Amino acid sequence: MSDLDERIAGVAWNADGLAPAIVQQWDTREVLMLAWMDEESLRRTLTSGRVTYWSRSRQEYWRKGDTSGNIQMLHSAQLDCDGDTILLQVDQTGAACHTGTRTCFDGRDLPAGDGARA
Amino acid sequence: MSDLDERIAGVAWNADGLAPAIVQQWDTREVLMLAWMDEESLRRTLTSGRVTYWSRSRQEYWRKGDTSGNIQMLHSAQLDCDGDTILLQVDQTGAACHTGTRTCFDGRDLPAGDGARA
Repeated sequence: MSDLDERIAGVAWNADGLAPAIVQQWDTREVLMLAWMDEESLRRTLTSGRVTYWSRSRQEYWRKGDTSGNIQMLHSAQLDCDGDTILLQVDQTGAACHTGTRTCFDGRDLPAGDGARA
Repeated sequence: MSDLDERIAGVAWNADGLAPAIVQQWDTREVLMLAWMDEESLRRTLTSGRVTYWSRSRQEYWRKGDTSGNIQMLHSAQLDCDGDTILLQVDQTGAACHTGTRTCFDGRDLPAGDGARA
């Protein structure tokens, strides 16, 4: 097995054959979004450098930016200690969110009580 | 309903009643880990300021740091555009990972091919 095959074989996919991918802008370190990958989308991402997900709602591969133009180029990727979560460092063109905001978390604060640090 | 109740009611929990939480150190912006929350653990986190998860393997609430001392204090929390992913900005004491590394992604690189930017 190649190093790539070996690493991909080490991913602990869930019952649906998927793993969550946290997507972070590599230089500013903004967390842009979370999406899902299967083995094939991870392989395409690592070999092509264009980040590709599995769309659970559409049940198809989704190469980020093909429709919107807001592509994600892979910078680096890490697996977590349990092997069931992927962290992608990317270079995001334009908005990462389909709503047009830079990240999918912009302006969607959950109110924290007095126990939280300001 | 209070603002808190209203926001929590807006979370799109999965079939198991859970949502993934991305955990980020608020100042350095390191992505520390990913864990899972149910409605009650999110409520406890937002009201107490001590980050609390639902452990899928142990099937119990897990207030981060109760065993290790490596607590997470909540700084702020956001929901994503679909309402099914939570981003937590925290202040992490010591190692976030049970293996003793600062983050759960340290030293676990997935090899990227020539298509990826170095």
